[in-house]
Amino acid sequence: MKNEKTHTKFSGTRKQTEQICANVSPEDTVLQPEIFISPPKWHLAHTTWFFEYFVLNEFLPNYKPFHSEYFLLFNSYYEGAGEKIKREKRGFHSRPTYSEILAYRNHITKEICRGLEHNIFPEEAVRRIELGIQHEQQHQELLICDLKYILSLNVEDISLFNLGELDPGVSSEDFHIKEGVYEIGYKGDEFCFDNETPRHKTYIPNVVVENKLVTNGEYMIFIQEGGYKNHQFWHDEGWQWVKESGAKRPLYWEKNHSFFYTLNGKEIFPIDAPVTHINFYEATAFANWAGKRLPTEAEWEIAAQKINYGLRWEWTNSAYLPYPGYKPWKGILGEYNGKFMVNQMVLRGHSIATPMGHERPTYRNFFHPELRWQFTGIRLAYDL
Amino acid sequence: MKNEKTHTKFSGTRKQTEQICANVSPEDTVLQPEIFISPPKWHLAHTTWFFEYFVLNEFLPNYKPFHSEYFLLFNSYYEGAGEKIKREKRGFHSRPTYSEILAYRNHITKEICRGLEHNIFPEEAVRRIELGIQHEQQHQELLICDLKYILSLNVEDISLFNLGELDPGVSSEDFHIKEGVYEIGYKGDEFCFDNETPRHKTYIPNVVVENKLVTNGEYMIFIQEGGYKNHQFWHDEGWQWVKESGAKRPLYWEKNHSFFYTLNGKEIFPIDAPVTHINFYEATAFANWAGKRLPTEAEWEIAAQKINYGLRWEWTNSAYLPYPGYKPWKGILGEYNGKFMVNQMVLRGHSIATPMGHERPTYRNFFHPELRWQFTGIRLAYDL
Amino acid sequence: MKNEKTHTKFSGTRKQTEQICANVSPEDTVLQPEIFISPPKWHLAHTTWFFEYFVLNEFLPNYKPFHSEYFLLFNSYYEGAGEKIKREKRGFHSRPTYSEILAYRNHITKEICRGLEHNIFPEEAVRRIELGIQHEQQHQELLICDLKYILSLNVEDISLFNLGELDPGVSSEDFHIKEGVYEIGYKGDEFCFDNETPRHKTYIPNVVVENKLVTNGEYMIFIQEGGYKNHQFWHDEGWQWVKESGAKRPLYWEKNHSFFYTLNGKEIFPIDAPVTHINFYEATAFANWAGKRLPTEAEWEIAAQKINYGLRWEWTNSAYLPYPGYKPWKGILGEYNGKFMVNQMVLRGHSIATPMGHERPTYRNFFHPELRWQFTGIRLAYDL
Amino acid sequence: MKNEKTHTKFSGTRKQTEQICANVSPEDTVLQPEIFISPPKWHLAHTTWFFEYFVLNEFLPNYKPFHSEYFLLFNSYYEGAGEKIKREKRGFHSRPTYSEILAYRNHITKEICRGLEHNIFPEEAVRRIELGIQHEQQHQELLICDLKYILSLNVEDISLFNLGELDPGVSSEDFHIKEGVYEIGYKGDEFCFDNETPRHKTYIPNVVVENKLVTNGEYMIFIQEGGYKNHQFWHDEGWQWVKESGAKRPLYWEKNHSFFYTLNGKEIFPIDAPVTHINFYEATAFANWAGKRLPTEAEWEIAAQKINYGLRWEWTNSAYLPYPGYKPWKGILGEYNGKFMVNQMVLRGHSIATPMGHERPTYRNFFHPELRWQFTGIRLAYDL
Repeated sequence: MKNEKTHTKFSGTRKQTEQICANVSPEDTVLQPEIFISPPKWHLAHTTWFFEYFVLNEFLPNYKPFHSEYFLLFNSYYEGAGEKIKREKRGFHSRPTYSEILAYRNHITKEICRGLEHNIFPEEAVRRIELGIQHEQQHQELLICDLKYILSLNVEDISLFNLGELDPGVSSEDFHIKEGVYEIGYKGDEFCFDNETPRHKTYIPNVVVENKLVTNGEYMIFIQEGGYKNHQFWHDEGWQWVKESGAKRPLYWEKNHSFFYTLNGKEIFPIDAPVTHINFYEATAFANWAGKRLPTEAEWEIAAQKINYGLRWEWTNSAYLPYPGYKPWKGILGEYNGKFMVNQMVLRGHSIATPMGHERPTYRNFFHPELRWQFTGIRLAYDL
Repeated sequence: MKNEKTHTKFSGTRKQTEQICANVSPEDTVLQPEIFISPPKWHLAHTTWFFEYFVLNEFLPNYKPFHSEYFLLFNSYYEGAGEKIKREKRGFHSRPTYSEILAYRNHITKEICRGLEHNIFPEEAVRRIELGIQHEQQHQELLICDLKYILSLNVEDISLFNLGELDPGVSSEDFHIKEGVYEIGYKGDEFCFDNETPRHKTYIPNVVVENKLVTNGEYMIFIQEGGYKNHQFWHDEGWQWVKESGAKRPLYWEKNHSFFYTLNGKEIFPIDAPVTHINFYEATAFANWAGKRLPTEAEWEIAAQKINYGLRWEWTNSAYLPYPGYKPWKGILGEYNGKFMVNQMVLRGHSIATPMGHERPTYRNFFHPELRWQFTGIRLAYDL
Repeated sequence: MKNEKTHTKFSGTRKQTEQICANVSPEDTVLQPEIFISPPKWHLAHTTWFFEYFVLNEFLPNYKPFHSEYFLLFNSYYEGAGEKIKREKRGFHSRPTYSEILAYRNHITKEICRGLEHNIFPEEAVRRIELGIQHEQQHQELLICDLKYILSLNVEDISLFNLGELDPGVSSEDFHIKEGVYEIGYKGDEFCFDNETPRHKTYIPNVVVENKLVTNGEYMIFIQEGGYKNHQFWHDEGWQWVKESGAKRPLYWEKNHSFFYTLNGKEIFPIDAPVTHINFYEATAFANWAGKRLPTEAEWEIAAQKINYGLRWEWTNSAYLPYPGYKPWKGILGEYNGKFMVNQMVLRGHSIATPMGHERPTYRNFFHPELRWQFTGIRLAYDL
Repeated sequence: MKNEKTHTKFSGTRKQTEQICANVSPEDTVLQPEIFISPPKWHLAHTTWFFEYFVLNEFLPNYKPFHSEYFLLFNSYYEGAGEKIKREKRGFHSRPTYSEILAYRNHITKEICRGLEHNIFPEEAVRRIELGIQHEQQHQELLICDLKYILSLNVEDISLFNLGELDPGVSSEDFHIKEGVYEIGYKGDEFCFDNETPRHKTYIPNVVVENKLVTNGEYMIFIQEGGYKNHQFWHDEGWQWVKESGAKRPLYWEKNHSFFYTLNGKEIFPIDAPVTHINFYEATAFANWAGKRLPTEAEWEIAAQKINYGLRWEWTNSAYLPYPGYKPWKGILGEYNGKFMVNQMVLRGHSIATPMGHERPTYRNFFHPELRWQFTGIRLAYDL
């Protein structure tokens, strides 16, 4: 089989997604309590739609869609891919049910496998399958975060699996970048997203990037010293967020700071684990309080040669903007990344919820500054 | 057994509720797409809570609640019954699951039956059980309406059961009430709600109450003659509703007026069936267009001796207010009806979704004037 | 001059409106801080528009409007009178200025006077002028209430005029109505609004209507005894209002209950004056706390033969609905009253802000139950 | 006099602000139709407060504030300067009136002049006065933009003054920047804002920055070719903005594109003038349609040596973020710029509404991407 590696990765990724849901009940898969959450069954279907729409429907002659309405129901944001339901209405549909969606997954998985096994896909289709795998991996992480959020709203204490949320980080030496022109962006022949390119030169000042992520214990001192009560540490919009949301601590911390909510249920508060579920405003406020700052994404990428990372996504002080000379992918898939390059901040690294092998030092994650339901943390830097 | 009749009615009612859900999937039971909708599994649990909270918890010594959090989760609006979740957040909980709630039902049903069989309940407890049966019957109708609404949002065409939504009404002679003093309100020894009392005198003018409900076909003429385009027929707030909602026809009618959505799936439009799923504004606009008016609830109640009713709840032009000398029930159950006596309009009769035996000519149903997901219709009256 | 009485009343009313604004600054006349408030200069213009649109424009041949856009700008809610700006945008216009509107008033006042002096108006036009006078009197009261609200938002303490807000009511004997059939509604040949007709029979139970309005001092005891903290006294929607608005006392009371805000500036709190600026929910909660109830409008109207009234508008427990046999005025003016007969509660009597001679025992005022910027108060009744 | 230059500039700036309002009516100065608009009289007072609070109150011993409430009323966003009214409530105050505020201005102007004339201010106070002048110049531009917005909402066509909105730009050669390390940021001894510092190195790629601003005529072609109908040109959030706002053209363009609204009233549409009143989304969509891009702020600053600018603020594709090594001013004035460095895009240059002498090539203006009531335009760049 020509595309054996793709086939193996495809099958493995599909299974892994379903594995994440091994312990959920159908009821857990329906809800969208906030607009930034998608119903878990929607993730299962949307990642399947991606293969059906961009591979089967485009490259198999006379392909008949699995269901006449799924193209409408499971398109996420591709304006070029026809009608779609509004994002805020993803949680308005009880049907198709969870098990119907598993059947849908099964069907499309088999079709893609059959095509790979019989070498009936052209090269571009295989490239799309590889993209679809990356896409599904991204949704695996979203699925985990969304499940955690949905389950946390119940009064019951539910355990899905142990993701290692209590593990402390590894400490080592800080990294000193010497000022000068550096190159950042993806270099190589493997997969990368369009937003990681082109590799280009950038000027970095003298800076130290710390090796250790900020811990829960350190963040607790920030709180105790009035972190959420003193406007001076905050962006103006961050301070509005504090006042409007009433936030007094990271998401999922219990009031008394002795327990916090994990995918494994409530756990005793781990003082040494990296602080998690904070947004960009909180990360910046902490950095200001500490007399340091967040690194830029260029600094982060250069420092990535030395620092230990991978426990939390790390907020940078870089806005999500195109690299010089950036060109989005051609066609509808050009909507994948480029159209989101405004009003969001870049996060770098990866997290305990990121599927293995999905990470890259040049990877650019991005979220709006007020969001904090991802596994996000803080790495500090300071000028010399 | 002393309370055999209660026991039989209790068992039957509990089963009937579950029967309504016979064909639903767990996913259908979770959603709350609008604030006036409750998740079906919430109805199943709340009607159970009613028996547990007002009977078992109060009358069984040392009663241990089935689950420590269900009193919080399934209290609806009783301020006197402790903390409760906000109405708009009923759809934020995936747990307990549908099957866990069925187990809860089963447990409480058994406890109540056991108590009735062994005559361990005092009289007041039995009265509460009888109220709980009435309460559950009310929720059966809400459950049916909510399921219809939830399922209608899916793109799939789902059939739950045939409620007879296509059946035409029976026509007979109109009823002429001669002006004078009449008595209305409940008289008798059977169960009635506090809001139906006291029986009292009221003055009714000369009026004719029509025997036939307005049909889909008649309502269609209203639409064709510009009913939704001409402010003159509408209350000012009704006209705002038309403009803001963009309403052009009753709920569940398809655009081309050739199909409409039922609990049995899409059906060919039945010209002769009573118009349904209209709100008070629409009912009033139709009456104005027809040069007639809606009856008052007193007129309706007197006319009820002669007219055929029971296919649709019928909007009256009476606001939901206390009868002269009205006293709410004592204690927490005083919240059942009295505190809602503002901003709502009275509906009289009953509908195809009302459980058999739940109806009474003195029954006062009430909804806000903009709501139309109930099986509501129009009966006209005119002055002489 | 044939219509001398109308001419005199017209001139006097026009002047009185302007007199209310004698001490305002142009800046005070522009603002609409809440949707239920209209900018004072809008009132001045709208009452003028009423005469221009319904009299001059309709009855003067070849009448040329004063300004091409004023029909658009100053129509309030008459759908039949062409385009109009949305109510919530009345405060979006700095122009025409206050002085331009005074010029507009002046011009139209002269035109109407000229027509009356030269007897060039047909009878229907004179009837419209009389209606326009009543209409302007209604707006005088709204203008006073709106000015009070607007000025109260300033940090400065501004005195416009002394309306007698501190005056205590007169106490005398309560009035006992004996049960039976009574007639209510307007009877006579003078002006009345269409909603006061037809005079009709109604059945009233045995009831005592108190002669004295509830005082600030009595209301203060209600507050001290937890009136705003105990759900039991409130309608469900009233209780939501308490929680959402954070209301803890009537509008314009200072926190410490030692001062309150009047049109004459801050005044020392008058314990004996009738409680004012409360809404229907508060009136009902007080009545429940006191173990009494609000009268119905029929009870009020019969009691009006004996009770002293006129200091405050008095909330009744009657919803604003048509009298049996009610017919709105013909044509566009049919929109004056009829289309508002839903979701509002009737107030009876009149207040210190009502222009002299505008009141009638059959007068039906109406507001939404949450509003309280009018001079509203409480009269209690109880069943025998 | 030691600070003669400051004195002259101060007096001139104060007068110029008042000159902008020469033709307004008091009613125009009160309104805040959108949250991003401030009432003109608020600008007049706030700029005065700046001198009173940061100079007189801090540096004059025993200074007695002009009015006990003005510190509360006219603080804008300085959390460190005590209580303040919420931004969205600036338009809730009719008092102090326009003329009272002019008296306030007059008083503070005299106090500052007196202090400068008698050399009683320490050096830091003079620096604050210089900052206050810059601050007032910024508000002069805001005042002009806000007046234009407020007046545009009237149905009348009002002329305040001629700002030269019809003037076409000057065309000349495009500017080619050769890739390499450049320095940007303020260098010199005159006034600059903290956000323009420190001067620092940055890497710029090969790029051509066009000399001419995009014209109304060119933008009209974009519209005619479906610019507002094709999602492909837009950021995702830009496309949401198009759909939700219903925008089809720049602000102040009439539907038929034959007139547009200016501070001089309605004017015949000037095809050759630079397109104005567009937001960042529109600027980006136009650039995408044209196959080019917006310059970064670093590119713009280097190109500023050659290009003609000053007719419109020019959107860049740079997010408003701190320069490497940025330190906000000390104390409360540190809130001036730093806390806004998130969610906004940088604009460079200046506009016809910017007071003469206020501009600098290193000046960083910033607004949220959806705002377009400023005199904003488009300059394009392209990669080589």
